[in-house]
Amino acid sequence: MKKYDVAVLGATGMVGQRFIEGLVDHPFFNLTALAASERSAGKRYEDCAKWYIEGEMPEEVRDVKVVKVDPEEVQADIVFSALPNPIAVDAEPAFAEAGSIVCSNASSYRMTEDVPLLIPEVNPEHLDLIDVQREKRGWEGAIITNPNCSSTMFVLPLKPVYEKFGIENMFVATLQAVSGAGYSGVPSMAILDNVIPYIPKEEHKDETESLKMLGRFDGEKIIPADFTISAVCHRVPTLDGHLESCFVKTREEATIEEIKAAMRDFTALPQELKLPTAPVPPVIVREEENRPQTRLDRDAGNGMAVTVGRVREDPILSFKFTCLGHNTIRGAAGASILNAEMLVKTRGL
Amino acid sequence: MKKYDVAVLGATGMVGQRFIEGLVDHPFFNLTALAASERSAGKRYEDCAKWYIEGEMPEEVRDVKVVKVDPEEVQADIVFSALPNPIAVDAEPAFAEAGSIVCSNASSYRMTEDVPLLIPEVNPEHLDLIDVQREKRGWEGAIITNPNCSSTMFVLPLKPVYEKFGIENMFVATLQAVSGAGYSGVPSMAILDNVIPYIPKEEHKDETESLKMLGRFDGEKIIPADFTISAVCHRVPTLDGHLESCFVKTREEATIEEIKAAMRDFTALPQELKLPTAPVPPVIVREEENRPQTRLDRDAGNGMAVTVGRVREDPILSFKFTCLGHNTIRGAAGASILNAEMLVKTRGL
Amino acid sequence: MKKYDVAVLGATGMVGQRFIEGLVDHPFFNLTALAASERSAGKRYEDCAKWYIEGEMPEEVRDVKVVKVDPEEVQADIVFSALPNPIAVDAEPAFAEAGSIVCSNASSYRMTEDVPLLIPEVNPEHLDLIDVQREKRGWEGAIITNPNCSSTMFVLPLKPVYEKFGIENMFVATLQAVSGAGYSGVPSMAILDNVIPYIPKEEHKDETESLKMLGRFDGEKIIPADFTISAVCHRVPTLDGHLESCFVKTREEATIEEIKAAMRDFTALPQELKLPTAPVPPVIVREEENRPQTRLDRDAGNGMAVTVGRVREDPILSFKFTCLGHNTIRGAAGASILNAEMLVKTRGL
Amino acid sequence: MKKYDVAVLGATGMVGQRFIEGLVDHPFFNLTALAASERSAGKRYEDCAKWYIEGEMPEEVRDVKVVKVDPEEVQADIVFSALPNPIAVDAEPAFAEAGSIVCSNASSYRMTEDVPLLIPEVNPEHLDLIDVQREKRGWEGAIITNPNCSSTMFVLPLKPVYEKFGIENMFVATLQAVSGAGYSGVPSMAILDNVIPYIPKEEHKDETESLKMLGRFDGEKIIPADFTISAVCHRVPTLDGHLESCFVKTREEATIEEIKAAMRDFTALPQELKLPTAPVPPVIVREEENRPQTRLDRDAGNGMAVTVGRVREDPILSFKFTCLGHNTIRGAAGASILNAEMLVKTRGL
Repeated sequence: MKKYDVAVLGATGMVGQRFIEGLVDHPFFNLTALAASERSAGKRYEDCAKWYIEGEMPEEVRDVKVVKVDPEEVQADIVFSALPNPIAVDAEPAFAEAGSIVCSNASSYRMTEDVPLLIPEVNPEHLDLIDVQREKRGWEGAIITNPNCSSTMFVLPLKPVYEKFGIENMFVATLQAVSGAGYSGVPSMAILDNVIPYIPKEEHKDETESLKMLGRFDGEKIIPADFTISAVCHRVPTLDGHLESCFVKTREEATIEEIKAAMRDFTALPQELKLPTAPVPPVIVREEENRPQTRLDRDAGNGMAVTVGRVREDPILSFKFTCLGHNTIRGAAGASILNAEMLVKTRGL
Repeated sequence: MKKYDVAVLGATGMVGQRFIEGLVDHPFFNLTALAASERSAGKRYEDCAKWYIEGEMPEEVRDVKVVKVDPEEVQADIVFSALPNPIAVDAEPAFAEAGSIVCSNASSYRMTEDVPLLIPEVNPEHLDLIDVQREKRGWEGAIITNPNCSSTMFVLPLKPVYEKFGIENMFVATLQAVSGAGYSGVPSMAILDNVIPYIPKEEHKDETESLKMLGRFDGEKIIPADFTISAVCHRVPTLDGHLESCFVKTREEATIEEIKAAMRDFTALPQELKLPTAPVPPVIVREEENRPQTRLDRDAGNGMAVTVGRVREDPILSFKFTCLGHNTIRGAAGASILNAEMLVKTRGL
Repeated sequence: MKKYDVAVLGATGMVGQRFIEGLVDHPFFNLTALAASERSAGKRYEDCAKWYIEGEMPEEVRDVKVVKVDPEEVQADIVFSALPNPIAVDAEPAFAEAGSIVCSNASSYRMTEDVPLLIPEVNPEHLDLIDVQREKRGWEGAIITNPNCSSTMFVLPLKPVYEKFGIENMFVATLQAVSGAGYSGVPSMAILDNVIPYIPKEEHKDETESLKMLGRFDGEKIIPADFTISAVCHRVPTLDGHLESCFVKTREEATIEEIKAAMRDFTALPQELKLPTAPVPPVIVREEENRPQTRLDRDAGNGMAVTVGRVREDPILSFKFTCLGHNTIRGAAGASILNAEMLVKTRGL
Repeated sequence: MKKYDVAVLGATGMVGQRFIEGLVDHPFFNLTALAASERSAGKRYEDCAKWYIEGEMPEEVRDVKVVKVDPEEVQADIVFSALPNPIAVDAEPAFAEAGSIVCSNASSYRMTEDVPLLIPEVNPEHLDLIDVQREKRGWEGAIITNPNCSSTMFVLPLKPVYEKFGIENMFVATLQAVSGAGYSGVPSMAILDNVIPYIPKEEHKDETESLKMLGRFDGEKIIPADFTISAVCHRVPTLDGHLESCFVKTREEATIEEIKAAMRDFTALPQELKLPTAPVPPVIVREEENRPQTRLDRDAGNGMAVTVGRVREDPILSFKFTCLGHNTIRGAAGASILNAEMLVKTRGL
């Protein structure tokens, strides 16, 4: 199979490193360029990036000369964007205009009408929104986004429930790891022996991005799912892994066994296509009363699976449950890479 | 004022130590006896108890000879019980029968029909249930209980809301500190860099004890409040302080300002009576977007106040908010002591 | 007693807040000004400072208008400096020249020949070095410094040992809390479930500042103590409190009991003068085999005492022991305040 | 190659689980039996063991019926012992007498004259001490031990230094993870935001076991290395990984470059024999100023390598450095497995 040239934008940060981790030795992609801020441009990657992840910086990138985030300097079929929003807002369209597919983890364009917000297991058909996007904007490339790191974890297991039984409304309380804020985002003085019940903009993202993903593509635009989500987000002293507890009301009655079966048996296009990083199964349903746990379950499916547990009756709504996934893999870099795998496997570029 | 002789049952554990901390130098009480298991009985307190709390073991108790948990060995007007349930279930009635008032932090009798489950700011009138209890059981003493450490934190701020606007139902997600399980309850291997989404029996307690406390005493028994609570409980890596986020539907409409005013202006009998450990105000409403925080706010009001924040509209129900209190003070030993203060101030013994 | 007007430079950071905490209601001092960077200058303190410490921002400072770090804008007898070094290097001499006594926690001038590096219990006579300083520089004011947060903890208990038995050399391994790097100094991603065996410049400070403090003032300059220290510094996941283990060779033989007695009985000028924040005793010697512990002992003496434990024979040198103190109180702001108390009590200004 | 039948004694605890993790799919060994306490005996492993390690309990052991720790019930060529000392003291000789080789992680027999205390890279020739042992005791089997988890980490990198330059004495300060005390050994209340400067018996082990390992086998007994070690041990809030800083005096002069080269170039029999779990290289020398770090480096070499950093001059002795290894792999189960690999490769059984 032809390998596509890919680049990482924002390559020195934590999500950028997760991109590198996932793209080195990837069967579909050749990692050909690393782009970062002016401060790093021109230096060897090893000289400007402090490697944050357990294990060593991959040999393949140590000597790569980092370039500026500029389409002139980066030739790639696909660029993976771990850019901060203020940079992403201009840079991503520039790359798309220059002909690259931008698989973005930034939030800038997630809710933009003609930009797909994609979880390949959930709404693969939204990918065709890039045809609308290209036509409207006259781009050769396109922008494809993945959702924020906390909504992924509940949207994935709820997808089969939504399909089978409908959802009327839901409440979600998240317990999010510090890596979600970037390497330097949460000072240790802020979080040791502490919980912070606030993450800027996160609740709004959970309450809106999820509905776009569960929405219907009518060939022109996405019609968001017709229910309401109420979210409350907490930062807790864990390194990686967002754990979330949900209270859900379905439209049609379903037993707990039916809910669990729907989640457990859920499989989707990425699994059928055997995409390289698609977890099998995408949702793991555990029966122990005290699982999922952040540290024990975040690496399930190489960080790409969501683990669900404690599915039980809710005294007010229909059921409640807890879910967990790795926020910088399934919730960020891994999500974008799976989006790109989906793209090249189903559409070429 | 006459001082009452008091004892602590289960004096060597963490809640027992919080009792000692609160009773040394108490204006109403003389701490006259410390009782613990057979293993400790007969020894000096200093020789059998490892002091878990910051600061030094109080001088006053170092030389006290620990006795067995046996009414024969403990003469006291009031005994404070930090006993584990399997011991409490027999020991507490024995003390009550022997004539002592038992102020218990154990869960054994909380839901028993003729036993008051008391938060003095919430349901002081339930205290008179001990007349029913004494008549029925022929006891000179009585058993008075305080609720589990997580329901206190949301019942206290919801009391004025319930009074003014009624409550139709609510969801609560708790993020509970490790001290709630006792000193050795949570191994460090279990909780470092981790969240455990399960605390045995805790959700059931939150869903039932709260309704008894908000219930009505008809002179014979408690008629529980007529709404439904759904709880999900998480253990997080914090030392002290239970932080809880709630989604609430009121019966009558109320603006966010009205809800906050109801909580902020809430005052109750313990404050009017100027009970020694009653916090003024009992509920602190903060306006910062990122408060309460576990480490920063757990000691408010000497660990007896509940701090509330992020009161805002809920897209599905009426409002949502976060609350926090110190689980081994307001949620355990301090709660029992305030119960005892209430008792002696309003009824004598 | 006349109260002196004092100011805090660098008032919004963590050490600045510890200064405020210590100076509000101080019997010797009126806190009259708060100075900070351009970014904060002109704003109310409450509007530009995020309060990091448990409990509330003191009422007295909420409405204070923050000024620039400029002698023109700050009139004060004493200025307490929590400035970062690059700012301190110019600002502190400017204040001294303008007539203020600068009690500095910065490292810029600690090792400067004519600047006293002071722990009032250890080397009070070094204070007179400011006469040399003033003469040489023509200043009305002066600069007085306190040592870095880790050397204080071992110099204080070693002072009486050094006096009685001499020291030939010593090794120290420190386990330092994250607050030592400032509020945002250590990202949580860097330290959760981790130890970092490196703190920039810290080992060099421990190896040199200590010898200056234990040195002799000959009326002109300080002749450093004539022994060698080898330090290794580790950052560990604790909030406050530097714990340090030392291996020491004395010049003269001493039994373990003699060493402990020397430390336990140690008292000094600040205690004799009953300075307001001088801890009594300055060094607490514990006999338990597992103390001092960071969280349990850091607040001893209101954070101004050093707690020592595990004093025992060393198989190679003379003895080994562990010591602990609060790094942002005894190791920073509290140290400077005690220096100022010493100054005004023994010399006026 | 013939595979040997092996069993794990103490299979339900944390080290027992590390044994299972290492023995499933091992090229030399068939895991044929799991033994544990009476409480577990007779049950399926999955029903009596709570799996503590990230990832899932291996399929191969879920259905295994656990047996008692009794040679009658366990037929195996080699038994790996993760037994607590009070059990090990009787059980291990019983197995050796019954003909099994006991590869023990318990401390009971480490310092026994005729029992090898083995790190295969350090003292492989000590293995022949089992001939003395067998003759003396009349056993067909034998007991082979591995050292405590903290001495391994410094003995391994010091071996080549000791060989080349000799050692006159050394000081070591350890920062040890909570898993070293077993799953429930350190309550979270004891260690969150805390350091405990005491681990029972650990310093004595570091000061004695190391010298036995670096000692000389004269065909009859081990003559311990002729230098002195002084250790101080701290428990810190990390999950896995013991980080240790050492101050060392060599007998002969050596430059820092020579010391680093000796460590970096160190290779030994297990590497030559390509033993399945022997790390290549056994010692990793890093040049960054802030490495090794506990979380980043503990898994190097699949948890079997020791990472060294900060090798530099010591102002009193010859050099100082920091080392780190995984305490439940290289420091426990992995050590025993490597011992067994060495045994079967060099001697048969």
